[in-house]
Amino acid sequence: MTQDLDDVPDPNEVVKRHERELESVLADVEEPANDDDSLTLELAGLELDRRDFMKTGAAAGAMSALGGCVGGLTDVGGGGAGTENGGGAKTPAHTVAPGEHDEYYGFWSGGHSGEIRVIGLPSMRVLTRIPVFNTECAKGYGYDEKSKEVLEDGGDYTWGDNHHPALSETGGDYDGEYLYVNDKANGRIARIDLKYFETDAILDVPNVQAVHGFTVQSPDTEYLFGNGEFRTPLPNDGRDLRSPESYASLFSAIDPETMTTEFQVRVDGNLDIIDSDKDGRWAIASAYNSEESTTISGMTRDDRDYVKAFDVPAIEKLVEQGKYEEKINGVPIVDGTKGSKHNSGSDPIVRYIPTPKSPHCVEVGPNGDYAFVAGKLSPTVTMLDIDKLGEVDDPADAVAGRPKVGLGPLHTTFDGNGHAYTSLFIDSQVAKWDIEKAVEADAGSTEPILEKQDVHYNPGHIQAIEAMTTDPDGEWLVSLNKLSKDRFLPVGPIHPDNDQLIHIGQGEKEMEIVADHPAYPEPHDCIFAHKDKINPSKTYDKADVDAPFVTESDSGVERTGEESVHVKLSAKRSEFGMSEFAVQEGDEVRMTVTNVEGVADIVHGVAIPEHDIQLAVAPQDTREATFTVDEPGVYWLYCTYFCSALHLEMRSRMIVEPAD
Amino acid sequence: MTQDLDDVPDPNEVVKRHERELESVLADVEEPANDDDSLTLELAGLELDRRDFMKTGAAAGAMSALGGCVGGLTDVGGGGAGTENGGGAKTPAHTVAPGEHDEYYGFWSGGHSGEIRVIGLPSMRVLTRIPVFNTECAKGYGYDEKSKEVLEDGGDYTWGDNHHPALSETGGDYDGEYLYVNDKANGRIARIDLKYFETDAILDVPNVQAVHGFTVQSPDTEYLFGNGEFRTPLPNDGRDLRSPESYASLFSAIDPETMTTEFQVRVDGNLDIIDSDKDGRWAIASAYNSEESTTISGMTRDDRDYVKAFDVPAIEKLVEQGKYEEKINGVPIVDGTKGSKHNSGSDPIVRYIPTPKSPHCVEVGPNGDYAFVAGKLSPTVTMLDIDKLGEVDDPADAVAGRPKVGLGPLHTTFDGNGHAYTSLFIDSQVAKWDIEKAVEADAGSTEPILEKQDVHYNPGHIQAIEAMTTDPDGEWLVSLNKLSKDRFLPVGPIHPDNDQLIHIGQGEKEMEIVADHPAYPEPHDCIFAHKDKINPSKTYDKADVDAPFVTESDSGVERTGEESVHVKLSAKRSEFGMSEFAVQEGDEVRMTVTNVEGVADIVHGVAIPEHDIQLAVAPQDTREATFTVDEPGVYWLYCTYFCSALHLEMRSRMIVEPAD
Repeated sequence: MTQDLDDVPDPNEVVKRHERELESVLADVEEPANDDDSLTLELAGLELDRRDFMKTGAAAGAMSALGGCVGGLTDVGGGGAGTENGGGAKTPAHTVAPGEHDEYYGFWSGGHSGEIRVIGLPSMRVLTRIPVFNTECAKGYGYDEKSKEVLEDGGDYTWGDNHHPALSETGGDYDGEYLYVNDKANGRIARIDLKYFETDAILDVPNVQAVHGFTVQSPDTEYLFGNGEFRTPLPNDGRDLRSPESYASLFSAIDPETMTTEFQVRVDGNLDIIDSDKDGRWAIASAYNSEESTTISGMTRDDRDYVKAFDVPAIEKLVEQGKYEEKINGVPIVDGTKGSKHNSGSDPIVRYIPTPKSPHCVEVGPNGDYAFVAGKLSPTVTMLDIDKLGEVDDPADAVAGRPKVGLGPLHTTFDGNGHAYTSLFIDSQVAKWDIEKAVEADAGSTEPILEKQDVHYNPGHIQAIEAMTTDPDGEWLVSLNKLSKDRFLPVGPIHPDNDQLIHIGQGEKEMEIVADHPAYPEPHDCIFAHKDKINPSKTYDKADVDAPFVTESDSGVERTGEESVHVKLSAKRSEFGMSEFAVQEGDEVRMTVTNVEGVADIVHGVAIPEHDIQLAVAPQDTREATFTVDEPGVYWLYCTYFCSALHLEMRSRMIVEPAD
Repeated sequence: MTQDLDDVPDPNEVVKRHERELESVLADVEEPANDDDSLTLELAGLELDRRDFMKTGAAAGAMSALGGCVGGLTDVGGGGAGTENGGGAKTPAHTVAPGEHDEYYGFWSGGHSGEIRVIGLPSMRVLTRIPVFNTECAKGYGYDEKSKEVLEDGGDYTWGDNHHPALSETGGDYDGEYLYVNDKANGRIARIDLKYFETDAILDVPNVQAVHGFTVQSPDTEYLFGNGEFRTPLPNDGRDLRSPESYASLFSAIDPETMTTEFQVRVDGNLDIIDSDKDGRWAIASAYNSEESTTISGMTRDDRDYVKAFDVPAIEKLVEQGKYEEKINGVPIVDGTKGSKHNSGSDPIVRYIPTPKSPHCVEVGPNGDYAFVAGKLSPTVTMLDIDKLGEVDDPADAVAGRPKVGLGPLHTTFDGNGHAYTSLFIDSQVAKWDIEKAVEADAGSTEPILEKQDVHYNPGHIQAIEAMTTDPDGEWLVSLNKLSKDRFLPVGPIHPDNDQLIHIGQGEKEMEIVADHPAYPEPHDCIFAHKDKINPSKTYDKADVDAPFVTESDSGVERTGEESVHVKLSAKRSEFGMSEFAVQEGDEVRMTVTNVEGVADIVHGVAIPEHDIQLAVAPQDTREATFTVDEPGVYWLYCTYFCSALHLEMRSRMIVEPAD
């Protein structure tokens, strides 16, 4: 691999194509028609009503003519134990028989829904949702005092935009302790306790806007790494408003135990996605807008951008020695810009590796040899030799390969058998390619490409099972497609995304789409763990509950002030600890509810009509709510979790006495 | 059918069993163990770790010994085109091949999640969610001015507890116009426009607490009927707090076009579920607590309760003639209590039909002959001959049959081939039975029972495809099981529910569980429509959008006052109408965003970091947000719906200038 960047196709070609297509889209707008998506070559990809098109059998030739390379679409469903398809080939089973368990947990980010989704693989069934940056009434998240405190600590927003879930690691493997995820909208990071599948901490990262790229440090989760994507004044308090050249994007290192920001590094351009190497030295981030412009045309003007590789121990040392530039909002800020003093010597703390303009994702392969940087506006993936990052004088010499994979490469995943799979947003395909062949081949070569599989449509992230570990499973891959168009029954103008389950084999040409799964807007990424690595609790341990345990005999009303009362209530099938209680109009009520059951899956809820209160109290757990009773009257608290044949009768009469 | 109530098994037996089991549950609580759910005979049903139990092959005998009658569990997955199971029998296909569509829409209530879920059948894939009584950031529901107004009109709560979805009908069939659903928590009814799959109105029903039972009037949706379940003082303003005998439960009739309450009827006891006949005369409600007690033991003291059949045209006539008792909060209240003047003559407006105590659901069969009242605490279903309701002197003579179906019958559904299917909460089974045989048989007979199918576990509602129309499909049935216990990978103390898909055949013994599907808490009911009956729009019609259409050239900032501005912004791939704009610290910003695209599935979102704003703007739609800019600085609005290869660059720089 000796070729330089000039050997790869001109990324401007892609941008020009975008611009032409934008014009054709605008032409559409003049007369929106019902068949508006049938004949337009859209910016979003090849949209010749592909679903019908495939059925004509003319697809492969026509699509190749349009610039794509088309894999076969096998039009079959998955069977419980594998079914024979028309051609006699075996379609892999993906359904799971009634009562049987999935093999893998999938943790899906929920994008601007703010939640995490837990999906079983291979069945693709959504097992539960974990509210994180949103408020969510089914689980009482944002209603009980515990979750309200978590949300308030995180800045008291009602929504977030989570992108990149990451599992805690010990010794390079998932330890099942925590899941972490970023909020792009408000620059936050959340921690989810996998003992209870519950968000237990949210950090509002100081000094950054839009934490986008996010990962944990391998192999032992000593840090969480977050990229502040948007360049803003620093601090963003009204200074430098019209001086974009002084704006900054920061890389942040967070302590996962204390959930505090340990240090930040200022860089050139906008940081994007990030991954950790496998040894705890390098955090490698993609980046764009080296131009430091504030418009799209300015951001895509130049032909080069720079991946940033952060030498974490070196930066740590600087911080320990107090060799940072300044503290802002209590966080040491190290200058990692290109010409800064820490970057000028022979041992720069941040290596700037040139890539074609506006690369998107960086993923580190399972054995830790290479980082894969998808080109987005370039049809290539740039491979960085991680061992060379600290050795070469010219960072460009760390580039180990640059295969031409197709149009709009965004993300790469791995099967652990020497293959990489790259999503192609514009081509609406997944390209499977040979990693070592790509190192041997010339830059821009298509030789390493083994197979392409059409997906429907416009994939963002793709993830193979346990691809982020050192030992991927290699059987399944999920393509998180951003558009579903006509793949599902229509549900109005906001379509679901389409998560396609793809079986990946070990040979040269074995990708097969097994199922389409609609996804509520808008998952960005997912991460998988074998079921044996996750061990949640079925009831709460009293030691973990920071609230009084209220038994039936403890139940009662205690007046705590002239206008405040403490209502204590036990819950069991099918009764609350009090069948009625009285408070005074104007009282602030602190209500403490304990579910005294020890039996798994017997949850009790507490709804208070006309008081906007809903608690979910799992066995042995206690939740509290605080509210004011403003209107005299009778209000029937009732259980919201259907708990027994007498569930409907499970309630308590709250009498609010008039104040005078 | 000449037997009276005394022939049926004593419902007190069931209650006594409940009480014994409650005690054993409490014993568990002393020492919660990890295997706490393996050996306890719970109130919630037969919980002998049934999943493992079934595998031993010893299930049938043991379970029968415990009081249930057990059907066979066939342990297979569904195949794309049907697969051969071990015994050589054909397992029906329920997966849908990639790119193919489901045959039916299912609209699921979301319980205390506040949302509606749209699920495709037979694949059981969740196609989308419709936020209704909750706030939800992915679709910007509760964030944009349009949805905020809908929520504020409905009382400005942040959550609700929706139970019973109902589709609008014309001529007795679904017309695809609207879906309606109740909120039990705050006594509300919502209307969802199926052109856009969007909630467009919420009514806070006056004078009631907890609208539980809910349905549309057949055949032409002239009314929505809602049952206020909880008895409260009337009005509930502090009067009569400690006089439960003066509390009331009201039946409400709502105009679906104006979403206003036309009249209400006061009755004895607590109203529960309701259904309409097929001819627009009778609304038939189950009810409990004839004792009018405020405690469980009091509510279940007597052996009898009364189904209420409301003679709608007769009540309408009284209201038209001004013959109601009073108006409260603007709504005419008619006295329908047992001894009231309108009920004393030969033509009572409300018929009180005696049933065993605490019946649960009432469903009217497809041909409109019978209403089926599930016994809950009685192991029977009481069938009412609807034609006789207006004819017989003694309402008890309208009882046409009372088969003994099993323990804890809650809901009944239909296949259109003469069979009823009743969910048995305590037995954890679905009983299939012959409707005409039940009329011919003695009360309490098990002769009409054709088959029982174990479900996992504790079913509430069950619904067969289009069972609520005059022409059910008869192929699939979904059992909405309240507990899932160990049926799925564990996800912490709050388990999913388990919606089981059951294939129902035409013969005597053909129920077969095809798939388990985890459900986020807590669906109560669902309703199905053939795909041809629902025709949503893929883009917005300008005529339906009550906000300015902002083109690219309209984009700009208009100062509307000393501290207020109007920001107008177009959105298309991959640009907002302004790449930057400035406002002043302290300004109230009205922001209007139009998605000018005409292409389906190209949605743009507008996130405003640190301002808690998230809009979802579908093609040709306009949404507005109002917020105040309190802190000077630079804030990058960005697109939240992944729209193109340059989506990441799609943003606009909001500069908030310092006030001085």
